[in-house]
Amino acid sequence: MFATAKIGRSLSKAAYKAEVENLRTELLEVQIALRERDIPVYLIIAGMEGAGKGGVVNTLDEWLDARGVHVHAFWDESDEEKYRPRPWRFWRAMPRRGEISVFFGGWYLWPVEQRFAGHWDDVDIDQCMRGIRELERMLINDDALIVKCWYHFSEEDQRRKLKALARSDRSRWKMLPKKSKFSEQYQRFEQVADRVIRATDIGRAPWHIIEATDRRYRDMMTGKILLQAIKEALADTSQDERPANDAPTIANGELLPDAPEAQVTLIDRIDLDQTIERDDYRKRLDSLQAELNELSWQAYNENTSTVLVFEGVDAAGKGGAIRRVTQAVDSRLREVIPIAAPTDEERAHHYLWRFWRHVPRAGRMVIFDRSWYGRVLVERVEGFTSHDNWARAYLEINDFEEQLTGAGIVVQKFWLQISKEEQLARFKAREDTPYKRYKITDEDWRNREKWDDYRDAVNEMLTRTSAQHAPWNLIAGNDKRFARIQVLEIVTKALRDTLKAKSKS
Amino acid sequence: MFATAKIGRSLSKAAYKAEVENLRTELLEVQIALRERDIPVYLIIAGMEGAGKGGVVNTLDEWLDARGVHVHAFWDESDEEKYRPRPWRFWRAMPRRGEISVFFGGWYLWPVEQRFAGHWDDVDIDQCMRGIRELERMLINDDALIVKCWYHFSEEDQRRKLKALARSDRSRWKMLPKKSKFSEQYQRFEQVADRVIRATDIGRAPWHIIEATDRRYRDMMTGKILLQAIKEALADTSQDERPANDAPTIANGELLPDAPEAQVTLIDRIDLDQTIERDDYRKRLDSLQAELNELSWQAYNENTSTVLVFEGVDAAGKGGAIRRVTQAVDSRLREVIPIAAPTDEERAHHYLWRFWRHVPRAGRMVIFDRSWYGRVLVERVEGFTSHDNWARAYLEINDFEEQLTGAGIVVQKFWLQISKEEQLARFKAREDTPYKRYKITDEDWRNREKWDDYRDAVNEMLTRTSAQHAPWNLIAGNDKRFARIQVLEIVTKALRDTLKAKSKS
Repeated sequence: MFATAKIGRSLSKAAYKAEVENLRTELLEVQIALRERDIPVYLIIAGMEGAGKGGVVNTLDEWLDARGVHVHAFWDESDEEKYRPRPWRFWRAMPRRGEISVFFGGWYLWPVEQRFAGHWDDVDIDQCMRGIRELERMLINDDALIVKCWYHFSEEDQRRKLKALARSDRSRWKMLPKKSKFSEQYQRFEQVADRVIRATDIGRAPWHIIEATDRRYRDMMTGKILLQAIKEALADTSQDERPANDAPTIANGELLPDAPEAQVTLIDRIDLDQTIERDDYRKRLDSLQAELNELSWQAYNENTSTVLVFEGVDAAGKGGAIRRVTQAVDSRLREVIPIAAPTDEERAHHYLWRFWRHVPRAGRMVIFDRSWYGRVLVERVEGFTSHDNWARAYLEINDFEEQLTGAGIVVQKFWLQISKEEQLARFKAREDTPYKRYKITDEDWRNREKWDDYRDAVNEMLTRTSAQHAPWNLIAGNDKRFARIQVLEIVTKALRDTLKAKSKS
Repeated sequence: MFATAKIGRSLSKAAYKAEVENLRTELLEVQIALRERDIPVYLIIAGMEGAGKGGVVNTLDEWLDARGVHVHAFWDESDEEKYRPRPWRFWRAMPRRGEISVFFGGWYLWPVEQRFAGHWDDVDIDQCMRGIRELERMLINDDALIVKCWYHFSEEDQRRKLKALARSDRSRWKMLPKKSKFSEQYQRFEQVADRVIRATDIGRAPWHIIEATDRRYRDMMTGKILLQAIKEALADTSQDERPANDAPTIANGELLPDAPEAQVTLIDRIDLDQTIERDDYRKRLDSLQAELNELSWQAYNENTSTVLVFEGVDAAGKGGAIRRVTQAVDSRLREVIPIAAPTDEERAHHYLWRFWRHVPRAGRMVIFDRSWYGRVLVERVEGFTSHDNWARAYLEINDFEEQLTGAGIVVQKFWLQISKEEQLARFKAREDTPYKRYKITDEDWRNREKWDDYRDAVNEMLTRTSAQHAPWNLIAGNDKRFARIQVLEIVTKALRDTLKAKSKS
């Protein structure tokens, strides 16, 4: 989920200057329109300590017309607040229609702290987050616009930032824990945040994860996201004509500033040049497959099932990678489900129905060659389903996978990536090899033309559906052998760890 | 919540015969239309043991075209089911578009049993119910129609029914617990069911509580509810033009069979003729007010706040009843909030905002003279808000009150009822008494003309928002003194019990 905030995006002074004036003008314009249309705006500014939430708010303060903006922080509790139900403080701070309330931390700060401090367990936080979903949906049903920004950066960047803050008097951060301790805290915080964000990433009020290392990039993105969200709200003609439930808003990718240093994506960060020597490959393959075979029997005996999901660009080598897994697992224990266009019967049900059908019995492994992620990839890009439907699907998918992992199933997801040049080479090779020709169709060429659209959809998918219990693994696919070894290593490790944890408990 | 299922509604053989043929014809017609419009229907048949769920399904079997109907029960778990995540069994049973799946117990049976058997606590059940809300909303977003019927009857009726069943060979119920034990079980089950239903009574898939004592009434209501729900779903032109989120469906009152024995409502069951002697009244009043005064100071010292809600027909005596409470409580400890048309500022916020404003500090008492229930009473009847908005409000209100009681606030709600004749007499008396004339307006006379509309709205409100932790108390108001004593007794008892429970823990 947070990998997208550790890419190293930035914005040069010049690039910032080129865009900021226009952005400010537009923000002031939509503020006036907001008032006319009576839409209340909730801007939630949350994220890591030291990520500059205060800085963001100061910038917005400068950009926006102060008359319609109110900033609320909830960290020091007044007597009045302490002796009333917790939500009371938020209700006091609700914006009037036509105005903007900026919430520092919003209703998210306190639960995150409770969990981080260990006062709460996962069930408590899930319970609380579902309450928040209800609250936000209720406000949205009342025509509100909710914009949620989460500021994040790498451990290294946070450490550096907090050190700098500690030197300045203004900061509450006088003491930094030792490095090892710090690292542990960073990871714990990320785990909590991951859970919180996944549980509240609803289609009509999605989270925007913003990399906070570079101040200019951070502020510019916040402004652009806010602007775009308000524009879309204004375009909604009226509540009655608004499409049903949880409609979507912004795909982050489309909003990135033009400057190349800001345009980097998660996928761009995959080092596609990694390779493995042929001899080395054979040795690793043999040893991994032997281990996997053993683990899969053990999993069978202990009723531990596995779901593997393979997605990737065309010709990235999904089939080959899957075969290296199935070779290692007895055919009675595993099944490969290739997902193509749905059958009539599948089409007559909810889109998740066809995947629920194939959920494995305890002890078995099911491998999906393409999957439910088609909803937010091909169906989105090709327009096979409405904007509403795919935007809502992130939450539905996260819920679905939680039901799997909650029942003890091991879930691992693979995204296989190759470069555009490598794809071209493989397409041509397929056309030239008679027994491979069936693998290449006109559709593959058409998809290739939409490379950039797919890239945006993939990046958003990776961000919104990467959970610690059901992670996306990005696989460098230019070297097929390298990719296969990576996949086998991840599957083997996941099974090994799960079975070990089970035998301990 | 279940008072509505203990009214004693029935349907004579003749009245049943007069309606059934028409109902069956219409049901078959809409079944054909369903298929053409590709709408999947989920019919959930749940409720008390012995309420005749099997009988309902048999009747529907007879009435509907079997080709589009599938019945699913989930009580004996197959191996296939046992070793997969729980939802898998439901996904297997999902109807195709255009068909009807009848779910015995649905996804509700198992959680109710877990809680009833004591394996779960309230947090577990709430967590599970919120998951169910998500599931149902997801299906509705996919154009499904979900019809949820809950069959219920009084303890006496259940006991009689189970005894009869125990005598027959076909029943699983061979042994009945002793009467005292039975009574305890009945109440426990009702508590669990109350929580489950309130948490999942969403606007677009509301619960229908059906009194199950009389077989003909029970079956007829089920058929009419199903028919009406399907008709409304067919009238929805398409997903895109459907109004936003959680739209509403049926108000039970409108569907009641024409026969008078089926038309009785909760309000009709209030015995309005109850009175109290003047001397007796003075004595009770003095002693109750003295006790309440003491309790209110104790509550202040122990940070226990109270919220009282007064609703009722015009001239039912709310003001007088409220004054008897405020006379007893020090004016520094309590506040009366009269709710009239919202101010500009209130109108600029969510409708619950104006009530959140007045949530008491710990130790204080706030009395609402009319309240948030205006949303489902006057706003509904007068058409001040859309059907969607008021239908969604039941859940929003239940959530709101749960946040209050969850924070330890005592919540008691009063519905003051007088007969139509008594109202007329009071209106006339007001017109004839100079210093009371300001109390009667044209609006009162207009409201009186809508007596029946209000009665339906009130009955639905009482059913959908009566929670054990925030109950509705129905007050017989024809004798003002009797009403006041009832109110004082309830307030005093609620405070006394709460403070006692606190001092114990």
